Amino acid sequence: MPKKTRIGLIQMKMSADPKKNILIAINKIKDAAKKGAKIICLPELFLTYYFCQHEKHSNFKLAEKIPGPTTSILSKISKELKVVIIASLFEKRTSGVYHNTCVVLDEKGSMIGKYRKMHIPDDPQYYEKFYFTPGDLGFKTFKTNYGKIGTLVCWDQWFPEAARLTTLLGAEVIFYPTAIGWHPKEKAKYGKSQLEAWTSVQRSHAIANGVYVAAVNRIGIEKQGVKKLDFWGHSVLFDPSGNIIARAGTKEQTLICDIDLKKVDTVRQHWPFLRDRRIDYYKGILKNPKDD
Amino acid sequence: MPKKTRIGLIQMKMSADPKKNILIAINKIKDAAKKGAKIICLPELFLTYYFCQHEKHSNFKLAEKIPGPTTSILSKISKELKVVIIASLFEKRTSGVYHNTCVVLDEKGSMIGKYRKMHIPDDPQYYEKFYFTPGDLGFKTFKTNYGKIGTLVCWDQWFPEAARLTTLLGAEVIFYPTAIGWHPKEKAKYGKSQLEAWTSVQRSHAIANGVYVAAVNRIGIEKQGVKKLDFWGHSVLFDPSGNIIARAGTKEQTLICDIDLKKVDTVRQHWPFLRDRRIDYYKGILKNPKDD
Repeated sequence: MPKKTRIGLIQMKMSADPKKNILIAINKIKDAAKKGAKIICLPELFLTYYFCQHEKHSNFKLAEKIPGPTTSILSKISKELKVVIIASLFEKRTSGVYHNTCVVLDEKGSMIGKYRKMHIPDDPQYYEKFYFTPGDLGFKTFKTNYGKIGTLVCWDQWFPEAARLTTLLGAEVIFYPTAIGWHPKEKAKYGKSQLEAWTSVQRSHAIANGVYVAAVNRIGIEKQGVKKLDFWGHSVLFDPSGNIIARAGTKEQTLICDIDLKKVDTVRQHWPFLRDRRIDYYKGILKNPKDD
Repeated sequence: MPKKTRIGLIQMKMSADPKKNILIAINKIKDAAKKGAKIICLPELFLTYYFCQHEKHSNFKLAEKIPGPTTSILSKISKELKVVIIASLFEKRTSGVYHNTCVVLDEKGSMIGKYRKMHIPDDPQYYEKFYFTPGDLGFKTFKTNYGKIGTLVCWDQWFPEAARLTTLLGAEVIFYPTAIGWHPKEKAKYGKSQLEAWTSVQRSHAIANGVYVAAVNRIGIEKQGVKKLDFWGHSVLFDPSGNIIARAGTKEQTLICDIDLKKVDTVRQHWPFLRDRRIDYYKGILKNPKDD
């Protein structure tokens, strides 16, 4: 397996029309492939506006089966371009059970992976608990011809357990399709601090685990009902020491980055955190906090 | 229990003479108390040079019993000044078994806590595995009249599990007495990146757990045998959103900081990560990585 590879992180703006969004995404995937990217990651729920801004039953019609129409389209593209595609979809599992799911299509067009978002948020305008049943497939890594990759989704990125478990399963790169933004009213006061916190937590996953970490966000102001969210972009790639390799701003941009998976090994020899874990004393992690 | 309190983080330079170091430390504790600090934290192994720079059997004579001479001195001071003192000591448990131990003395002079460093490093010039048996008391928090505090030590700060477990046990502030520095030969090339990684990881503990995090480092170039380490200071306090409240540079400095423990509650309502942990899927944390 080659140790050097090139990845493409597609930071995009969504429209209200899923048919338009898939075409935009395909064009961006083709561009990234033309520039040599071998693993290409789209933002969370790239087919639609971030519909979780409000709780609306008719939004369930946006969900689809996996495999289904979108994986079928993307699998043709991945085969044609000989690239791995990471795509986040609204999955209908069965009546009444939906997931926020991330699929991995390999360069032969096969769906080699499915990860169902494990940590589901519920905050004002991020009403995901209304739509998504928390994942029950556990944490996941997938062996591709371009490296062992792990997939996590958005809210997962605030949980060190998720990055650690994905690392322990062998991930060399962790991809986080994301949809995060500012509440317009909070932006002036808290915007900088929120963005920095988000960046810092992902950076620390790279450092603590000695892995590459990529976060791929959407951009743009989206209005759903009477409320708006201002998606903050700032997609970013960290190397296994936590150095920023590339970072976008708040515009549409595809980050094309070379990575060298040998660095995972080298960094872990120099920062041997995995060597010294106290697995004999971590049982409390499986519990909720102590009562006050 | 009052929710607002003031803490003192003593960033100091050590001399080769333990008797001198305890006097310096006492003076700095008195100064901090005069400025209103109620919880005062010293750097890791503040009584001595960082002797782990080389493996030398005669260094074992630097160890002491706990409780012992130093806790006895500090307990008088903590009682006199009505402050909580967090002090890191080289503990002799019994012949052949030593620990890197952190004690907490309350404002009545009682030793209310003992934490034995759980994660022990072994890197060039940080030969701690030669000196210290890894802790077997587990992770710890201590209830004081000024708040519930957790203690971890230096290398622990690279392990998200340690901060998480200390949080789950109720810590509102986590203190990390520390001894970390640059290898002089690496400083130009890697120094900035290393310091940023160290800062970033601790910041992320604050964010992911919604706790205050304080790191208290030593400064100065110390020569042991033929080798040197350049201790980088940069002691720092983060609030539960990961904002920097105060940060030192590379000189001696005592950070005096007001903290409001109500923020722990408020931040966790706004960033409810603890609510959404998937304790049903974290078992893999208790294992080492999968074989390749």
